[in-house]
Amino acid sequence: MSATALSQFEPSVYAARLEQAAGKAAADGLTGLILGTGSDFAYFTGSWIATHERLTVLAIPADGRQPVIVTPKTDVGELKRSPAAAAGIRVLGWEDGDDPHTLALNAARGKTGAYWAKIGVGQSLTADHVLRFQQLLGHRSDSTVLATPIVRTMTMIKDAAEIAQLQAAARAIDEVHAQVKSLLVPGRTEREVADDIYSLIISGGHTSVDFVIVGSGPNGADPHHEFSDRKLEQGDVVVVDIGGSIGAGYRSDCTRTYLVEGTTPDDLSEKMRTAYAVLEKAQMAAIEAVRPGVSCSEIDAVARGIISEAGLGRYFVHRTGHGIGLSTHEEPFITAGNDLTLAPGMVFSIEPGIYVPGITGARIEDIVVVTDTGCEVLNQRPRSLQ
Amino acid sequence: MSATALSQFEPSVYAARLEQAAGKAAADGLTGLILGTGSDFAYFTGSWIATHERLTVLAIPADGRQPVIVTPKTDVGELKRSPAAAAGIRVLGWEDGDDPHTLALNAARGKTGAYWAKIGVGQSLTADHVLRFQQLLGHRSDSTVLATPIVRTMTMIKDAAEIAQLQAAARAIDEVHAQVKSLLVPGRTEREVADDIYSLIISGGHTSVDFVIVGSGPNGADPHHEFSDRKLEQGDVVVVDIGGSIGAGYRSDCTRTYLVEGTTPDDLSEKMRTAYAVLEKAQMAAIEAVRPGVSCSEIDAVARGIISEAGLGRYFVHRTGHGIGLSTHEEPFITAGNDLTLAPGMVFSIEPGIYVPGITGARIEDIVVVTDTGCEVLNQRPRSLQ
Repeated sequence: MSATALSQFEPSVYAARLEQAAGKAAADGLTGLILGTGSDFAYFTGSWIATHERLTVLAIPADGRQPVIVTPKTDVGELKRSPAAAAGIRVLGWEDGDDPHTLALNAARGKTGAYWAKIGVGQSLTADHVLRFQQLLGHRSDSTVLATPIVRTMTMIKDAAEIAQLQAAARAIDEVHAQVKSLLVPGRTEREVADDIYSLIISGGHTSVDFVIVGSGPNGADPHHEFSDRKLEQGDVVVVDIGGSIGAGYRSDCTRTYLVEGTTPDDLSEKMRTAYAVLEKAQMAAIEAVRPGVSCSEIDAVARGIISEAGLGRYFVHRTGHGIGLSTHEEPFITAGNDLTLAPGMVFSIEPGIYVPGITGARIEDIVVVTDTGCEVLNQRPRSLQ
Repeated sequence: MSATALSQFEPSVYAARLEQAAGKAAADGLTGLILGTGSDFAYFTGSWIATHERLTVLAIPADGRQPVIVTPKTDVGELKRSPAAAAGIRVLGWEDGDDPHTLALNAARGKTGAYWAKIGVGQSLTADHVLRFQQLLGHRSDSTVLATPIVRTMTMIKDAAEIAQLQAAARAIDEVHAQVKSLLVPGRTEREVADDIYSLIISGGHTSVDFVIVGSGPNGADPHHEFSDRKLEQGDVVVVDIGGSIGAGYRSDCTRTYLVEGTTPDDLSEKMRTAYAVLEKAQMAAIEAVRPGVSCSEIDAVARGIISEAGLGRYFVHRTGHGIGLSTHEEPFITAGNDLTLAPGMVFSIEPGIYVPGITGARIEDIVVVTDTGCEVLNQRPRSLQ
């Protein structure tokens, strides 16, 4: 899918975002922003273009002058067809022999002719580019700061059009989950199941697969497991955590825990059945606690508290959730110690899990949108052990 | 696939690489190296672990003391099971409240107690981490340099075990290409074909799909096209460029240009048939020019020269090739202006293309390994219009 086809917002949406970012940069005393490719770039330009090791950046001068994309000449055409050009961004192509970093810096400086500049650099820029910009800025220690705080305050609150895309992504991944149970036949490998899920994600309307986790039996106890050649066995619990991208690049991310075909909850140990009931209760209680004004850490504490009260706290080894949008993991992080207060338009996962190393694991994950009075749960598949 | 299962080299291989890197860092006057996750990290540790926005780095002190991985506590277990621990790397877990950047800096400093340090930072480290390290180093302009030159001299020359994995990757992608022609039925969409190719890549032994490009008709003229909902039509030329990862994470990358089912070269214009013949000649001549002592720019000039002589130079809009290994694009880049001299063990693509905007395109891509006297071509599928 080309960057053009992925973009579904009007150019005016991107133009408004660019203007807002310039204003915030000015208010923070910055000369301008330089953002690398990825989700921030897509947020402001509608383009997911990536040019690997060659520099492509969006420069937003704080003085309100025209934003500029600096990109290899071969990519100018694609970017001119993207919403970026219609949103008022100048697309400047470079070729071998040019110095793209200087071009980007000059653009980010706006009308400032002075040597001095204070540039907000995007989080996705890698060390090679950061060090080169710093060199051009004379190695001054105050010449670069992170653009992240400015960008984050904007991307963290989704508008109605963004939420509609996240809803579509959730529906699409729900439809994949609706077919997962039928794939979990004893004797099949996790890889074979993952293969089928890849196909279902793509054929079901996502434009790309972001990740597929099929953790059966003891592999379910590793939150980082992807899939292996292990064959599903009678009695297995299977954690299936999957996601892809849709529309302008908005992500899905949903986990359900299954039983292989032919196995019923009665075949599990009493301990496992009880643990799963605790997990269901913890996940639902955390969802019910979501509303404006509550802090991220409070939501984490709700899920963690219920699991800990049941004596299972040591088996819940990760945070309760993460924001999602044009990237799968972004602010707000639903974690102990994050005092950030929830506000309408924030979108994140609620995904407590219980992991008994070497034995088994379980996780339930839904994406929720904070509303004026509570939250909307985007994923709708049954949460019980299926 | 977990990091453990992906790693196929003995711990001694990683230990030798770490020792070599420390020696190079010392020779360059560095205190130590700090490398982020990704291909460099995998090269030295055997692990592809990625922890998203949370810091995971490998610190290699230049004084020969023990290398350290700093990683979230939840990932310590996985890393201890990877070759990293057996290779002599200490795995240090951090949790909320710790300062992982300070832990990493202290490790990279080795026994140096002094405030002063000069750290080689890995290219994959993002701006948030680079700026934090610089802050801890007192914003001194000479406190950070790129680790890239040190790492690149090591990763660019593949040993026999690495080449064996690249050969396996090439065979696996060749097997996928052997089935592509049968998928190209008029009326099917590029997306449906891409979906089938995803499945074939995974079921054929790759552990992940890195990219799938299906450019039919006018879409073949865009080197950055991925796939769309365009239906294949009688008479279409289709560029199919695909790749995945295998074994310890070594990549495949191979392009063939096809005709849809029912179309023969005779159905194409004389111009297109001639252009394709030029492309075949250019690609083969570039392959035949590969041997130790020749520069990257000379290889590029061979392919470009033949295409330009035929009056088609303006349609060959990208470089001739790129290195490949644990990443799909790495040194050596086969491009005009790159005076780097080829040496045995370098592995890269030879992939000239001809693109007529809005009309059609064609590309032929093979991976080659530089040998003592020439090169070995890893991809073996027929190169003619199939």
